[in-house]
Amino acid sequence: MLSKNQASHIRSLKIKKFREEHGQFVAEGGRLVTDLLNSSFTVLSIYADEDWLAGNRSLLEKRNVPCIPVTAGEMERITALATPGPALAVVGIPATPQPGELSTLGGNGRLFLALDDIRDPGNLGTILRVADWFGIDAVLCSAATVDLYNPKVVQATMGSIARVKVFDGDLPGMIATLSEAGHHDRSHPPRQGPRTLTVYGSFLDGESLYSQDLHRGGVIVIGNESRGVSPDLLPLISHRLLVPSFGESGRPRAESLNASVATALICAEFRRQQSNKSMQ
Amino acid sequence: MLSKNQASHIRSLKIKKFREEHGQFVAEGGRLVTDLLNSSFTVLSIYADEDWLAGNRSLLEKRNVPCIPVTAGEMERITALATPGPALAVVGIPATPQPGELSTLGGNGRLFLALDDIRDPGNLGTILRVADWFGIDAVLCSAATVDLYNPKVVQATMGSIARVKVFDGDLPGMIATLSEAGHHDRSHPPRQGPRTLTVYGSFLDGESLYSQDLHRGGVIVIGNESRGVSPDLLPLISHRLLVPSFGESGRPRAESLNASVATALICAEFRRQQSNKSMQ
Repeated sequence: MLSKNQASHIRSLKIKKFREEHGQFVAEGGRLVTDLLNSSFTVLSIYADEDWLAGNRSLLEKRNVPCIPVTAGEMERITALATPGPALAVVGIPATPQPGELSTLGGNGRLFLALDDIRDPGNLGTILRVADWFGIDAVLCSAATVDLYNPKVVQATMGSIARVKVFDGDLPGMIATLSEAGHHDRSHPPRQGPRTLTVYGSFLDGESLYSQDLHRGGVIVIGNESRGVSPDLLPLISHRLLVPSFGESGRPRAESLNASVATALICAEFRRQQSNKSMQ
Repeated sequence: MLSKNQASHIRSLKIKKFREEHGQFVAEGGRLVTDLLNSSFTVLSIYADEDWLAGNRSLLEKRNVPCIPVTAGEMERITALATPGPALAVVGIPATPQPGELSTLGGNGRLFLALDDIRDPGNLGTILRVADWFGIDAVLCSAATVDLYNPKVVQATMGSIARVKVFDGDLPGMIATLSEAGHHDRSHPPRQGPRTLTVYGSFLDGESLYSQDLHRGGVIVIGNESRGVSPDLLPLISHRLLVPSFGESGRPRAESLNASVATALICAEFRRQQSNKSMQ
């Protein structure tokens, strides 16, 4: 039975201010909720129909999460979805990992995504799903990137939010931590070696990514949907990549690709070259 | 000056029934409207702010389109967007091309997309944008695919709706028209030859697309977002393609890719192999 207070608390978490105040966000859908129960996230409470609760009893007992059975009518009052799923979880927002941790991540062929002000929640969610599929070591988000815990982002990740490591804040600083550019910064000691990475960016006037040797991995900077990569990141980028279009030259065509599509195409080409190399 | 009748007519076109009744749809945004003015679509009227009208005067005179200057407040009353653009066009829905026309399209390395019940408007729009970028000869939509003239689809195409050839209706029939499978149908005479195409499908249990020889082009079947390719299309598909994921085996990861992302990855690999082949 859903109380009035519970309903208004859950609804308040649609708004970033209240998510930050409470350190909580909402995740909806049966699969997403079980993905979170099987992750390192702290699931604080679950609102679900009786069937779903019964079907997931052993997992719920193992994780010892308070469960509130709700009717379809009660779910309608708390959902952010047009078509609500059988379960909704209130989840603790984990502490943001420290940027210093970045340099410890990944093995050979390390690959990171740096998101420079991605504004559309669907794009950010889809990018996390892509990052999960391609085994990206971490996703770095600029301060102006849409909030990771926005309900539309959480939904579009389709559960990948439970698995992908995300850092946010000072994007140039995080890129410098990972990259060869780190040694240009006088406040850090010079560093160079097998752990430093090349920084790539996606540009409409770049060179075809199929003509580049990408098997060593790197950091891929994805610019904002309308204005591309910010000027303050340009000095950090040593290779400008383009996903080539196709067809008669001079024929009018799409001006650009969707940001999540471009991200996927670039990640796939890195991973394809790395697989080829490892088979040689 | 926007009349009450004009405003209610434009708003009615958000609904498929009224789009079909009037044979009209709405396109919004400065770039999208100029793309349509430069296409074979019939733009019936334009509602825009004075600056936009002044900036596009020569194009508007050339196309002889009635223009209605509107204020920001008037635009608010007719827009379907959260952030309205400077221009909105009412456009005639063109006659659906005849399936017979399909076999006349494209040259060497012909490539077609067959969409099997894509339901999300954002996905369909993004797929058209991808099709435009990769020079796809035509996109074939099943009858249950979301309406091409849904405002969210039109918006997500970012103008590609003006350039990509779209067929809809009997998807198995259209695929058979293009494919070698055509000669299995006793009602058609046997056909085989350089114009017949291989039919590929996207499957989570398929073979890596990077291990396939794709340079001849073909028809790519993209299944519904939740349930994949329909059973009635399976007999038409001769090659099952998978976009491989990456990372330690056994590690939990995303269950699938977004439909528009998967489409882009497959189209890109066809075009990459075709480019390589043409350079040999």
